[in-house]
Amino acid sequence: MFDKITYLDNAASTRLDERVLEAMKPYFFDTYAVATSEFGYSMGIDAKEGLMDARGSIAKTLGASEEELVFTSGETESSNMAIKGVAAALRKKKGSHIIVSRIEDFPVLNTAKSLERQGYKVDYLNVDSEGTVDLDQLGSLINKETALVSIQHANQEIGTLQDIKAIADICNEKDVLLHTDATHTFTRVPLDVSKIPVDLVTISAHTIHGPRGVGALYVREGTPLEKWMDGGYQELNRRAGLENIPGAVGFAKAVELVTPEENASLARMRDHTISKALEDIPHVTLNGSRNDRTPQNANLTFHYVEGESMTLHLDMRGFAVSTGSACFSRSLEASHVILGIGGDHERAHGSLRFTFGRYNTMEDVDAILGALKEIVEKLREISPLYAKK
Amino acid sequence: MFDKITYLDNAASTRLDERVLEAMKPYFFDTYAVATSEFGYSMGIDAKEGLMDARGSIAKTLGASEEELVFTSGETESSNMAIKGVAAALRKKKGSHIIVSRIEDFPVLNTAKSLERQGYKVDYLNVDSEGTVDLDQLGSLINKETALVSIQHANQEIGTLQDIKAIADICNEKDVLLHTDATHTFTRVPLDVSKIPVDLVTISAHTIHGPRGVGALYVREGTPLEKWMDGGYQELNRRAGLENIPGAVGFAKAVELVTPEENASLARMRDHTISKALEDIPHVTLNGSRNDRTPQNANLTFHYVEGESMTLHLDMRGFAVSTGSACFSRSLEASHVILGIGGDHERAHGSLRFTFGRYNTMEDVDAILGALKEIVEKLREISPLYAKK
Repeated sequence: MFDKITYLDNAASTRLDERVLEAMKPYFFDTYAVATSEFGYSMGIDAKEGLMDARGSIAKTLGASEEELVFTSGETESSNMAIKGVAAALRKKKGSHIIVSRIEDFPVLNTAKSLERQGYKVDYLNVDSEGTVDLDQLGSLINKETALVSIQHANQEIGTLQDIKAIADICNEKDVLLHTDATHTFTRVPLDVSKIPVDLVTISAHTIHGPRGVGALYVREGTPLEKWMDGGYQELNRRAGLENIPGAVGFAKAVELVTPEENASLARMRDHTISKALEDIPHVTLNGSRNDRTPQNANLTFHYVEGESMTLHLDMRGFAVSTGSACFSRSLEASHVILGIGGDHERAHGSLRFTFGRYNTMEDVDAILGALKEIVEKLREISPLYAKK
Repeated sequence: MFDKITYLDNAASTRLDERVLEAMKPYFFDTYAVATSEFGYSMGIDAKEGLMDARGSIAKTLGASEEELVFTSGETESSNMAIKGVAAALRKKKGSHIIVSRIEDFPVLNTAKSLERQGYKVDYLNVDSEGTVDLDQLGSLINKETALVSIQHANQEIGTLQDIKAIADICNEKDVLLHTDATHTFTRVPLDVSKIPVDLVTISAHTIHGPRGVGALYVREGTPLEKWMDGGYQELNRRAGLENIPGAVGFAKAVELVTPEENASLARMRDHTISKALEDIPHVTLNGSRNDRTPQNANLTFHYVEGESMTLHLDMRGFAVSTGSACFSRSLEASHVILGIGGDHERAHGSLRFTFGRYNTMEDVDAILGALKEIVEKLREISPLYAKK
């Protein structure tokens, strides 16, 4: 249909890097044994070493030790495991109160809602108009029964970074465990658990050109965590299931391939997109913070136009972007994030999210901005909302 | 170290088939978009079609409809999801009684134990000396509070096939849901859910040269199942998490590549191994049934020798086999399966499990049998147990 599709949606970061596949191949075809203990045969030991090396190199980028990293099937499993595991471990010992932010991604938000149905008490923290959580409210909500606080490192839709150090200090001072979903910041924005007292961190390979179906959970040594995925004794008996060694090795390679230069380049595309859209197109609102946001994210509302219409018109010109939450693909329901920062349904429905990845260029950005300007103008011409304004 | 390592352990079936990787590649590098609804952009729709095609073709081999198959991260997750999902859905509506066999694999067994700690009542069904469950006991244990029966289609260690039709008929007659772990039979031994009234079936790609970290759960339409992996609304809102589309496509390709001819060839290697070992080496016991076993499995106890010693000596000659359960790699604890069929610790520790896969040949089998005969003789010469007999 097109010579080239330009992905500027989540897929911009889910395309596998060829070098990741090359790193995985030996574990598909040569060292494909089941990881085994020192009692096993030699190929099993080689496979285990591949797994341990991957674990160690990923842990290092978080400032963690090797034993503190548990491989999982991705972001969703990591957050389920963290929140349900702590909740079960502390329900009787401490209490059944949990605090999450109002704009968490679905794995955290819907895990919290599921615990609520099981009798846990959940508080949903407010955020300001840029998506920053209310630290005073956090401090005042924590009580003696609080088992866990879960606040994301950055937002999945509007990219807003939280002050995770300030959040961790509050939790640490009040002796409450903290989980953070760092899916959208891992390797892009520093998070050093040797300096910031966060107890559990969700990370995933799919946001950095790594393999799908692979993630990990950082678990600080000594953190009370009931096993969630029951079965075998893999992952130091914290997560059952045949180890996905090629996946773990691919994840480690994906981590290795992210550079500060790349992150700076993503931030330049982000800044250019935001500046040009605000300058060149009337009635545009930036969603999220101008400065405290992930390098790969821009989110803008084009008023008097439907996000879905823009998406379809961009698609017809070979550009892929998202509106609302890409995870919530079954409906046109308004984004809980835009509503959470005080936006109305019109602002949510007119929003476009851009995600920049390794394979995007500044030329892509200029091309989509040019196309978007034309599309928005045309759509507004036929919009009854725009005519009435 | 060797020109060639001959895998006759679980790894014999975990080696990825090159054709599976080829089938996955377009979804790594071209159609890598996030699966989206009809409101999304065209590449998302293509990705979704890839996912639906994979789902449909796998479902078909089970006699199921497309909507009844849920992709997961593998066997362990599928069994957790099935058992915990039904248990949660029926706890108040029906009761908290669950029945599993004594020789289930760890995902089922330890999920049952975890539910027991949460107040569920679990009965562990006995098996006979070949590993066949006691159908009379099953019938008598089912009561009005029974929410679920979970009995494997075939055993992970000794390969014994259960009469799943008879089990399903008993459960169906008493109006109790049945889950079966078919990890070790899927595509190898027929299981048609349109003819056998089983409600939930665990399957996995890793046993048929498919990708690691990919499995599925068949869920009969209308089965009460509380969502276990919370988060987004993927997989018809039954399992959250970014869809692993390359994994699903690879799984479908792996299924397609299994042929009746291959299964017959595996069975010939199995039968030859069993016959030759029993004929050529004294004091050998077959574990499991002679006839009702999976085509890819042989399990033999070489009395007066330690399985670990045989494994190490075979390893030094370039052969990889397992002793006990390969999943249980952290200890030398005796296999609960061998103990379950009435074996003692000596029989468990002297056991070797052979798994035959696509890349094994009859020459491999003859070579390992020759090596094993020598090794067993040598080990017995220095065994105090053997001297005393």
